[in-house]
Amino acid sequence: MNLKELVGIEAATYVKDGMIVGLGTGSTAYYFVKELGRRVKEEDLQITGVVTSIRTEEQAKELGIPLKTIDEVESVDLTVDGADEISDDFQGIKGGGAALLFEKVVATYSKECIWIVDESKMVNKLGDFPLPVEVVPFGSHNLFRLFEAKGYNPTWRKTDAGEILLTDGDHHIIDLHLEVIEDPRALADELDKCVGVVEHGLFIDMISRVIVGTPEGPKTLEVPTR
Amino acid sequence: MNLKELVGIEAATYVKDGMIVGLGTGSTAYYFVKELGRRVKEEDLQITGVVTSIRTEEQAKELGIPLKTIDEVESVDLTVDGADEISDDFQGIKGGGAALLFEKVVATYSKECIWIVDESKMVNKLGDFPLPVEVVPFGSHNLFRLFEAKGYNPTWRKTDAGEILLTDGDHHIIDLHLEVIEDPRALADELDKCVGVVEHGLFIDMISRVIVGTPEGPKTLEVPTR
Repeated sequence: MNLKELVGIEAATYVKDGMIVGLGTGSTAYYFVKELGRRVKEEDLQITGVVTSIRTEEQAKELGIPLKTIDEVESVDLTVDGADEISDDFQGIKGGGAALLFEKVVATYSKECIWIVDESKMVNKLGDFPLPVEVVPFGSHNLFRLFEAKGYNPTWRKTDAGEILLTDGDHHIIDLHLEVIEDPRALADELDKCVGVVEHGLFIDMISRVIVGTPEGPKTLEVPTR
Repeated sequence: MNLKELVGIEAATYVKDGMIVGLGTGSTAYYFVKELGRRVKEEDLQITGVVTSIRTEEQAKELGIPLKTIDEVESVDLTVDGADEISDDFQGIKGGGAALLFEKVVATYSKECIWIVDESKMVNKLGDFPLPVEVVPFGSHNLFRLFEAKGYNPTWRKTDAGEILLTDGDHHIIDLHLEVIEDPRALADELDKCVGVVEHGLFIDMISRVIVGTPEGPKTLEVPTR
């Protein structure tokens, strides 16, 4: 079993009967969802899943996990998702898989969020990983030029075929190559105010726990109460 | 000629040869665009229009106004648009026509913006007009419940057929019935930070001039430099 699979299985131990569970997107969340599917089938685990992408929806349906949309539930009990970078103080960058908008919406309405990652995602400061910004197509080229002028080194997220990608929400993604983000909270505020920005990949004060895959096995870090 | 037509024609006098002109949306902007069309045809006015909605695009094409998209221009020289409410200190609410997102994008990249309205739109404080908030459909029912909990009296913007409306950007609109907005800047900040909010109808520090239709004719108000 690989490290991603081990942390996925470990995260699934936090899921109890009767829970509404947010199902993350990406290569690590995949194993969490797979393990939940196994428990639903073999252990008669009673849960309702809320997906964060079309991809995860397809996986969950195949596994027979009962689903509701985020709009059909008042709140989610626990969401488990991957992350692209987690800083010393447990802030994160997400969106490498282009699902940041739906992931952030589900996280926003979740009582608890756990991120599952391999060791390489744990960093001192955020920013080595390009920061995804989901933008309205109308005016997005102007926004791209604005990010260039600010020195944010923007690039378009493209499909394998080389075309500008459309997210599940029918927006584009501009990746900002910042190297180091000294003040994630200030940058989040700035991007929130940018006209045409739908969401960005900075997830601030969102999680209570991180499960890290290490060669010695999954290691759980509790986030101090802020 | 009605008051709306008179202010539309007055606003068009600010348009000069060679300009890139933002073309607003709504019943007053309609007359501005109509007058530009006349001048293009009869006076050989050389301009490029940038539209703020599919509706205005259709009108401008019929009139033979040459068009570019906002993404094809570096900036817009002058945008003329309507507004639903303008406060004493020249802040505004827009979006009654459901075009606020594209209108705000075009205004953002405009060197100058003029609003054209009838007297009834000039108010002491904003908020009697419901504030439109454009939201991502995914999770919008949760956002609606959040606005309810905050006491913002939300309603869904619907089509004439009674269905939840889809904007030109494929989002929904939630109207907030606030009565009075004491601090538009603070509310704008709060809404900007709300996950799932694409844009809102508060236009802060956007304009340099208002042309108001009065029974005595169009009256031009210059916005003091902030």
